[in-house]
Amino acid sequence: MKIGGTPYRTIWPESDGAVGIIDQTRLPHAFETLKLATLEDAAHAIRIMQVRGAPLIGVTAAYGLALAVRADASDGGLESAAKTLAATRPTAVNLAWALNEMLQILRPLAPAERVAAAFAKAAELADDDVETCRRIGAHGKAIIEEIAGKHDRTLNILTHCNAGWLACVDWGTALSPIYQAHDAGIPVHVWVDETRPRNQGAALTAFELGAHGVPHTVIADNAGGHLMQHGDVDLCIVGCDRLAAAGDAANKIGTYLKALAAKDNGVPFYFALPLSTIDWTLSDGVRDIPIEERDARELTHMTGRAESGDIVTVQVTAPGSAGANPAFDVTPARLITGIITERGVSPASREGLASTYPEYARTA
Amino acid sequence: MKIGGTPYRTIWPESDGAVGIIDQTRLPHAFETLKLATLEDAAHAIRIMQVRGAPLIGVTAAYGLALAVRADASDGGLESAAKTLAATRPTAVNLAWALNEMLQILRPLAPAERVAAAFAKAAELADDDVETCRRIGAHGKAIIEEIAGKHDRTLNILTHCNAGWLACVDWGTALSPIYQAHDAGIPVHVWVDETRPRNQGAALTAFELGAHGVPHTVIADNAGGHLMQHGDVDLCIVGCDRLAAAGDAANKIGTYLKALAAKDNGVPFYFALPLSTIDWTLSDGVRDIPIEERDARELTHMTGRAESGDIVTVQVTAPGSAGANPAFDVTPARLITGIITERGVSPASREGLASTYPEYARTA
Repeated sequence: MKIGGTPYRTIWPESDGAVGIIDQTRLPHAFETLKLATLEDAAHAIRIMQVRGAPLIGVTAAYGLALAVRADASDGGLESAAKTLAATRPTAVNLAWALNEMLQILRPLAPAERVAAAFAKAAELADDDVETCRRIGAHGKAIIEEIAGKHDRTLNILTHCNAGWLACVDWGTALSPIYQAHDAGIPVHVWVDETRPRNQGAALTAFELGAHGVPHTVIADNAGGHLMQHGDVDLCIVGCDRLAAAGDAANKIGTYLKALAAKDNGVPFYFALPLSTIDWTLSDGVRDIPIEERDARELTHMTGRAESGDIVTVQVTAPGSAGANPAFDVTPARLITGIITERGVSPASREGLASTYPEYARTA
Repeated sequence: MKIGGTPYRTIWPESDGAVGIIDQTRLPHAFETLKLATLEDAAHAIRIMQVRGAPLIGVTAAYGLALAVRADASDGGLESAAKTLAATRPTAVNLAWALNEMLQILRPLAPAERVAAAFAKAAELADDDVETCRRIGAHGKAIIEEIAGKHDRTLNILTHCNAGWLACVDWGTALSPIYQAHDAGIPVHVWVDETRPRNQGAALTAFELGAHGVPHTVIADNAGGHLMQHGDVDLCIVGCDRLAAAGDAANKIGTYLKALAAKDNGVPFYFALPLSTIDWTLSDGVRDIPIEERDARELTHMTGRAESGDIVTVQVTAPGSAGANPAFDVTPARLITGIITERGVSPASREGLASTYPEYARTA
């Protein structure tokens, strides 16, 4: 998407052989790009979250392996580089998946052939992700278009957390339909939940919507219910970290509360995700999806820009009070209007998902 | 309640004729008391929110009038002081009410009699508030006791915002039942919603529970639904800014979302409030209670303590992104288990409230 009128992806090959990225640790207060020239640069970028979001982490690891084989294309070098990259974010499923895709291509090749093949495969993984997100957006845009057809005014769409292009290579998942609607001239305005405790909405979603020129307003996570009660939300679209085969959706903590309010006020509530996010082995998502408990410091402390321009971290809770920080919650299928993937929109139910994706459902 | 083992009220007469308060602008990072010696001290304390919370603002204004008549007990001095105090927080209903109570007593008296009468009436208003809150707590404690009787473990109670003793003179409203249960030896643990955007939970509720020794944990406003889904909340108690005669309750933004989650998970949800909070002229609270829209800076900027010890304000949202800040929302009566006042517990419905308070309901 665009930043100040210039189209960007979150990762790209540079003409000098390096790999360019946006330093996301500096967002939203500064927009800076970086060049990754070595395996260690790529591993470092993943480790300290200069890149974040499952798809982008996977593609960065793929490019990291390409940078590694350029320095050492031997079997030993390849395997050692893959291990280094896999250890940067050990719980990221997409990271392991992307490295595996790369190794399957590279292992059978002679060392001399590996560099070109590695860069080509990394570029292919990036392009595949862009295409997946573009399709999610096209299906979601059709939903927005239909609702817009009923009103002669700007459509208000609420989103939670950041499921935008900054987490992917381009387009994003939940935000892809919004970008496509906006680019097509449908008047949309986005309510951006700030998304405590890590503020991905206030920082990243607001930044990327603003940079592309999409009208939006940041709100406290507490405000969505009130806005829905008063007719100020036409539609909710959020991303998804894991979808159970029965349609229950794990996403950033607080999503469930917004889905309850949407149901209570007759507002459609959609999850947008790539097919790869569906876990066909899980039936009861509320019971079975494990929820990560993260460091309470994410809640008790906040980082922002002081008047001096310095980035400062401050404690906002009473000294000595403990904090708890469950990072995700699960929205039961009964609260979900539909699941948007690259293949289309399906009901959030075992039958609905199975009929749209029969080849996967059979393996459950 | 206690701070470090010492019992406090939020306002008290000092032996030297001044009026003592806790400087709440310094909480939770420092506990400091102040002496108000003049009308201007009292007006300033209300204006810059060294005292906050409707009941405490009212009592501070009453003491402010007493300080004023000590300096100038003439009719002109009395009326001018009342005007000065009324202008400090023009929308605070309790402030106008307390000043009116004082003026009714003081106007008929000779100037020489006014000083003693003013201090006596201010003390009476303070004592009345303490007694009201104590009774709310006693009725609420009975609810906690009943639920505790069904479990052989610590009871988990969720609250939103600050409806504690810091907003009143002592006890508080929503927290009064919790203090009384804790003091009676019932094992309770409180989930404290941080309450964005002004963080009254993370700052004030966490501070006062911690200072009194009540076990508690601060959580993001997003977390309550997840905790309820997993059986980690036995009961919710919150305060109330305005209750419609039909039982719809206005309270800090986000309360509605927690009430939806409580309903969805079979968790009882109570509002605790003095009778004076009930607006017998309003029927449909969602439609009719006006919601204050506050400065977006409360959302976009946060204040806390930096590592250096300095209190610093930082911007947390993307630069250039607008914010919206509705300060309250309305929880429909159908989501409310009961209304706790100084007179008892009643259903949140027109019939329920009318049968408990027949003399008020008749005026509707």
